[in-house]
Amino acid sequence: MHDAGADLVLVAGGAGFIGSHLCAALLDRGDRIVCLDSLQTARRSNLQALLDRPGFEFIEGDVTRPLPDAITGRAARFGRVYNLACAASPPAYQIDPEHTMLTNVVGTAHLLRFAEAAGARFLLTSTSEVYGDPECHPQREDYRGWVNCTGPRACYDEGKRAAEAMTFDFARMGRADVRVARIFNTYGPHMHPDDGRVVSNLICQALSGRDITIHGDGSQTRSFCYVADLVDGLIRLMESEIDGMEPVNLGNPVELTVNELLDLVVSLTGSSAGVTYLPLPVDDPRRRRPDIGRAERLLGWTPKVPLDAGLAMTCAWFADELGISGAPLPAIAHAAE
Amino acid sequence: MHDAGADLVLVAGGAGFIGSHLCAALLDRGDRIVCLDSLQTARRSNLQALLDRPGFEFIEGDVTRPLPDAITGRAARFGRVYNLACAASPPAYQIDPEHTMLTNVVGTAHLLRFAEAAGARFLLTSTSEVYGDPECHPQREDYRGWVNCTGPRACYDEGKRAAEAMTFDFARMGRADVRVARIFNTYGPHMHPDDGRVVSNLICQALSGRDITIHGDGSQTRSFCYVADLVDGLIRLMESEIDGMEPVNLGNPVELTVNELLDLVVSLTGSSAGVTYLPLPVDDPRRRRPDIGRAERLLGWTPKVPLDAGLAMTCAWFADELGISGAPLPAIAHAAE
Repeated sequence: MHDAGADLVLVAGGAGFIGSHLCAALLDRGDRIVCLDSLQTARRSNLQALLDRPGFEFIEGDVTRPLPDAITGRAARFGRVYNLACAASPPAYQIDPEHTMLTNVVGTAHLLRFAEAAGARFLLTSTSEVYGDPECHPQREDYRGWVNCTGPRACYDEGKRAAEAMTFDFARMGRADVRVARIFNTYGPHMHPDDGRVVSNLICQALSGRDITIHGDGSQTRSFCYVADLVDGLIRLMESEIDGMEPVNLGNPVELTVNELLDLVVSLTGSSAGVTYLPLPVDDPRRRRPDIGRAERLLGWTPKVPLDAGLAMTCAWFADELGISGAPLPAIAHAAE
Repeated sequence: MHDAGADLVLVAGGAGFIGSHLCAALLDRGDRIVCLDSLQTARRSNLQALLDRPGFEFIEGDVTRPLPDAITGRAARFGRVYNLACAASPPAYQIDPEHTMLTNVVGTAHLLRFAEAAGARFLLTSTSEVYGDPECHPQREDYRGWVNCTGPRACYDEGKRAAEAMTFDFARMGRADVRVARIFNTYGPHMHPDDGRVVSNLICQALSGRDITIHGDGSQTRSFCYVADLVDGLIRLMESEIDGMEPVNLGNPVELTVNELLDLVVSLTGSSAGVTYLPLPVDDPRRRRPDIGRAERLLGWTPKVPLDAGLAMTCAWFADELGISGAPLPAIAHAAE
């Protein structure tokens, strides 16, 4: 795929939700992977499935620290560096906001310097959070965002904006060949059951028969991309020979309200649980939908998995994960057909 | 001023333009200062005048590195920490954008952790650049800005936004008592003659008889605050017992176009130099004017020095600095009366 001598791919954050799917997809295409992960938010079981596969090597480490010698000592062998390292759900990234900021800024600096030393191409997974609570809809990459830099989400949102700034500076200074993906809401197997995000929340509560909690009145909208589609977009972006100076939105442009999502999940799980409405967290975005024109044009990428099919697969995985696979889940079999 | 045992003030970036005036003003009020500066953009002569004063101690160091033992070893003696450390003019901060970003993020983290350990109050000098090229005018502190996080100014603008985010996180987590000032364009003696900013550019070119260069057509507006006013605002903010969770704009709300500034400078210096118009740099803001209602209300602060008087003092200082004090400067004597 790249220079003959550069046979390794570094995936920082490769034991996380998206990272574990990315690693699996890269292994599927024959890449040899070194996964660097602090296991701060990663699920051990995500990692376990990868450890059994040939071509996969795991190194525990935190990107805010200098990269381990086991990686820097083989720099010339790396042709690609993916940076997915950061807690991504608000409850997780707000536990230690200083660490979240440093993961994004210092971690990205360490990985960019490594890519520079290795002559490797670098891909930053940025986020739709750089658009904040957007005033323009859908969000195109040239929209500059409406981010509160003083609020409790800023450690992540501003951390990612700063990571983008540094990534493009490395490219502008001729120090690295870069790609920047702005990832919108993504869902699928390997999510944390209790990471506080809406898809996993709704599914786990519906499956377990607990009351379902909705933050706000449920009229806020989101756009959900199935993780396999997202990973396909990341690999296309990394391997494309485009001008890397522009960020690329990756997400599913099908928009629905949280209440519509709730109805789908209830229907898929056959849940009869009640619904409790809680206050909306500070700075929670009201609407979020990607304009993916750039990804379509540059990468020939568009999401393929419809929401009902993706949710059915996710419900089935969570049911298995939570050990309630014996429960009646009538709609899943139908939707997954 | 504060705890009896805490008799020292740390001023990071204290040898710079604003920093040197701040140190002088703090010495005037009886504070004992430890100035930490990398001398990256500081003028040696700014520092020299301070070194002669009792109560002033200089330590050379870069805030991106762990703070020197000579500071951390005396943590309990520090009651105040001012962070002014960062190159602030685009040509200077764009030389090494990675270092600019890390100065803002890692430097601020080092100083915040020091303030936490010392139990000292921390003041971040943020910037009107967090508003980017503003769509709302004048800019209030709750305006979220229009910043291009992928452009060549982002290392500074996003670096400061990230530094704000981290500062407010330290306050939210109960780790430090903080203040954040957003400083608008400031001018006065001790500026770099060639830092690429409009006031120093115009004055130095007018004084030296070279052609005067204006970027853009000169219709873009700025608001210029005399440095003594700004320093007064910084000290008031640091010493005020306000809720530190809100940033405070500090600047002069009198707005004028760059062409109007040019006319003033030409009149003050008696220059007969021609004017050359050059292209506007990328992401240069078109308008910039602070709403200072919050500073007026919370600090009782308002700028006092009129622009013509401040410019006259600045012209006189530059004429002396450039060794052309013998040149005819008819308007200065008048304006400075």
